[in-house]
Amino acid sequence: MSTSISPLAPKNVPELPAIAGVRLATAQAGIRYAGRTDVLLAVFSAGTSVAGVFTKSKCPSAPVEWCRTHLKMGKARALVVNSGNANAFTGKSGRAATKLTAEIAAKAAGLKPSEIFLASTGVIGEPLDATKFAPVMQGLSDRAQPGDFLAAARAIMTTDTFPKVATATAKIGKTKVTVNGIAKGAGMIAPDMATMLSFVFTDAAISAAALQALLKDGVTDTFNAVTIDGDTSTSDTLMMFATGQAPDCPRIARASDPRLKAFKKALLAVLANLSEQVARDGEGARKLVEIVVEGAVSKASARRVALSIANSPLVKTAIAGEDANWGRVVMAVGKAGEPAERDRLSIWFGGIRVAHKGARDPRYDEAAVSAQMKKPEIYLKVALGLGKGRDRVLTCDLTKDYVAINGDYRS
Amino acid sequence: MSTSISPLAPKNVPELPAIAGVRLATAQAGIRYAGRTDVLLAVFSAGTSVAGVFTKSKCPSAPVEWCRTHLKMGKARALVVNSGNANAFTGKSGRAATKLTAEIAAKAAGLKPSEIFLASTGVIGEPLDATKFAPVMQGLSDRAQPGDFLAAARAIMTTDTFPKVATATAKIGKTKVTVNGIAKGAGMIAPDMATMLSFVFTDAAISAAALQALLKDGVTDTFNAVTIDGDTSTSDTLMMFATGQAPDCPRIARASDPRLKAFKKALLAVLANLSEQVARDGEGARKLVEIVVEGAVSKASARRVALSIANSPLVKTAIAGEDANWGRVVMAVGKAGEPAERDRLSIWFGGIRVAHKGARDPRYDEAAVSAQMKKPEIYLKVALGLGKGRDRVLTCDLTKDYVAINGDYRS
Repeated sequence: MSTSISPLAPKNVPELPAIAGVRLATAQAGIRYAGRTDVLLAVFSAGTSVAGVFTKSKCPSAPVEWCRTHLKMGKARALVVNSGNANAFTGKSGRAATKLTAEIAAKAAGLKPSEIFLASTGVIGEPLDATKFAPVMQGLSDRAQPGDFLAAARAIMTTDTFPKVATATAKIGKTKVTVNGIAKGAGMIAPDMATMLSFVFTDAAISAAALQALLKDGVTDTFNAVTIDGDTSTSDTLMMFATGQAPDCPRIARASDPRLKAFKKALLAVLANLSEQVARDGEGARKLVEIVVEGAVSKASARRVALSIANSPLVKTAIAGEDANWGRVVMAVGKAGEPAERDRLSIWFGGIRVAHKGARDPRYDEAAVSAQMKKPEIYLKVALGLGKGRDRVLTCDLTKDYVAINGDYRS
Repeated sequence: MSTSISPLAPKNVPELPAIAGVRLATAQAGIRYAGRTDVLLAVFSAGTSVAGVFTKSKCPSAPVEWCRTHLKMGKARALVVNSGNANAFTGKSGRAATKLTAEIAAKAAGLKPSEIFLASTGVIGEPLDATKFAPVMQGLSDRAQPGDFLAAARAIMTTDTFPKVATATAKIGKTKVTVNGIAKGAGMIAPDMATMLSFVFTDAAISAAALQALLKDGVTDTFNAVTIDGDTSTSDTLMMFATGQAPDCPRIARASDPRLKAFKKALLAVLANLSEQVARDGEGARKLVEIVVEGAVSKASARRVALSIANSPLVKTAIAGEDANWGRVVMAVGKAGEPAERDRLSIWFGGIRVAHKGARDPRYDEAAVSAQMKKPEIYLKVALGLGKGRDRVLTCDLTKDYVAINGDYRS
C-alpha cells in the first residue's frame, strides 16, 4: 500500500487560530496503531450548542447512534474521537463501549456522560476495547488547551495521506467570529476502515436548532456532493459546536436571522474546503474531477446524473487513463434514470466541447483535449438541454492503487 | 491489456445442433478489427416470430431504436450483428447507418428492410460506415447455412476472452424442440466498447406475443441478475427468434399455455448459462461471485440489497484480495436504502457464518474462511432476518486488470 502523500494535497496548510471555549488534546491510546496519536479530546465551555448530520446507512455504528440520541439535548461539553476502530457492527458490546467511553471522559473532565459526543473510525466488526481510553483520558483532560487543530486532525486520520483543516472568519453584528474545521477521509475509503468524519468549531453564539439548520443546508453542496467510490460508510459524521464565547457576540436563535449572512458564507467555505480535501485524498487518487451537469429538469435531477457519472467505474478508469472518453459519459447519463435526450446532449472536457447534440463535435481537437486530460484537475461538463437544473459534484479517478489499497493488504 | 482467456471460462464448450429455419454466416467487413470476423448474418425462414428486451438507458444506440420500432410487427427474416462499432451516440448518421445496413441485407437476401433486425457493439460515438457491409453481404446471404453457432458467437465478440454459447432441448407436445443461444460480454465492459448482446434461436412455433412474455420473464433472474461494474450499456440487446420449423410442432399462441412448461425451463437454462458466462468473462475477473440475500421484506428488496453488495467497489476489491471482509458487506447492506436491521444481520462466506445478529460470529474460524476465499467461485450469503424475500445475483471481483483494461489503453 502506498503511504506517500496524495499528489492532489493542498500546497499550503492554513494556520488555524484558537477558538474561545474549545480546548483540544490528543494522545496515543494504542487502539490499533503504534507510534501515532489515535484519540482526540475536545472540551467545550458551558453553554456550547451542538448540531450533527450522520450517515444514511441502515447499519450505523454505535457512536452514530449515541450521538443521535444525545443530540436532542442540543448541548455538548466534550467530544471524544478515536481512530483505529469504528465500533461499527459490534452489537451489544458496541453500545457498552460507547457508554464506557463517555463515562471515562465524563469522569476525567467532571461532566455528565450525556454531554459527551463520540466518533470512531477504523476497523468494522471488531469490538472496541474502551478500557484503553481510561489510562489516557485524565491526561487529555488536564492537557487540553486552545489551538493546535492540526494535531487534532492528525489524531483522527486512518489511511488519509494528509491532515485536513480549514478556517474562515465572519462578522455577526460587530463581532468577528471564527469557524475552524477538521476532517478525515471520504466514505468507505480504506482497508477495513469506515468513515468520513468532520468536526467544525466556532465561537459564535447560535442555538442548537439554528446550528442544525445551517449544517443541514451547508452539507448539501459540500460533503453530500463528494463521492469517492459510491460506498457509504456506517460511521459518516459531521458535527458542529458553537461555544458562544466570542466577546459580545449576539445570540442567534433562528437560522433565518439576517445577521447570519456572512457566517453562513464562512461555514460554507469551510465545509467546501474540507470536502474538496476529502476528494483530493481519495484512495489512490491521481486526478481531482469536478463534474457539472446543467440543463437538467431540476437541481435534484442534475445531482443524480452527476453522481451517476462520478460513480461510474468506466468513467473513473478512463480519467485515470487520461482518456476523454465521452462515450462512457453518455453511458453514465443514460443509466442515471433521469430525463435525458440523446440528441440534445453536449459534453465538455476541460472546457473543450467533445460532443454536441447527440454526436461527436466535428470541431473536436483530440490533441487539445488530451492536453487537458493530463492535468491533475479535470473539469467535466454535461449539458442535457432540457431545463435549468444545474449541479456540481467532486470525485477522483479510479486507479490501480485504489484496487491495491483495498484488495492487496491481506495478500 | 490481457488477452488471455479468463480463468473462469467454462471447461467444456457444448456442440450446438442446427436449428431448422436458422441459417448463419460470418465475414470480415473490416469495421474496426483486422484478421477476424466482425459481421454475422442470420437468415430465418418465413413466419419466424421475434421478441426482444433492450437496455433501459435513456441514450440507446441507433440499432436498439431500430429494433424497438420493427419489433412491433413481431416477424423477423434476418439479423445482422457487427462488432467493432456500436453505432451509439452517432446522431442522424447513426439512424442513416441502420437504414442502410437493413437495405443492404434486404437486397442481398431478397427481403424487406423492416424484416431485418440489427445489433452493433464496439466504439461509442464513432460514425458507423455501413457501406462496408455492401461488399460482404451478398456472400453472407449466399453462404448462410444451418449450424456453426460457435462461429457466430466469435464474430460478435469485442474484448470477450471466449465465445459464449449454450443449448437445451424440450418437448412441446410430442415434438422435441431446441433452444440455442449466443452472447457477448456484459454491460459496459470493454475499452470504449458498449454492450451485452445475446441472441436465442429455437425451432418451436410460438407467437411473438408469447415469446415476448417468455423472454421478459426469463431475463429477470438471469441477465438482469448479473452485474460486472454497475455500468449500463447504451446497446444491451437480448433477442429471441422462433422459426416454428420443428416438424409437427404445436403452434403456441399464449405464454400461459401449459404445453410450454418444459420449454420455459429450457429457455431459462440457456439464459442462465449465457448470463453466467458473461459474469465469468467480466473484465479482469479472477473470481465468480454468487450473492444470495434472504430474509428481506420482498424479492425486489433482496435484489436491491444484493446489487448494492455486487456493485460495491470495496466488496469487489476485498474479494479480489481474498479477504472475507464482512464489514464491507455490512456497509453495502446499509447503503442499499432497503429495510435492514443491523442487529438481525448474518453473513456467510463460502457457507461459513462470519457475522451473526449484528456482530462477529464468535465461532468464526478465520483459517477456514480464508481457504474458501482462495477458491475461484465465491458464495456470499446475507440473511436480513426480516421476511421471506430472497434473491440471487452474480458478479465478479474488481482487480487491477479491470483498471488496466479500462484505463491504460491510451497510455
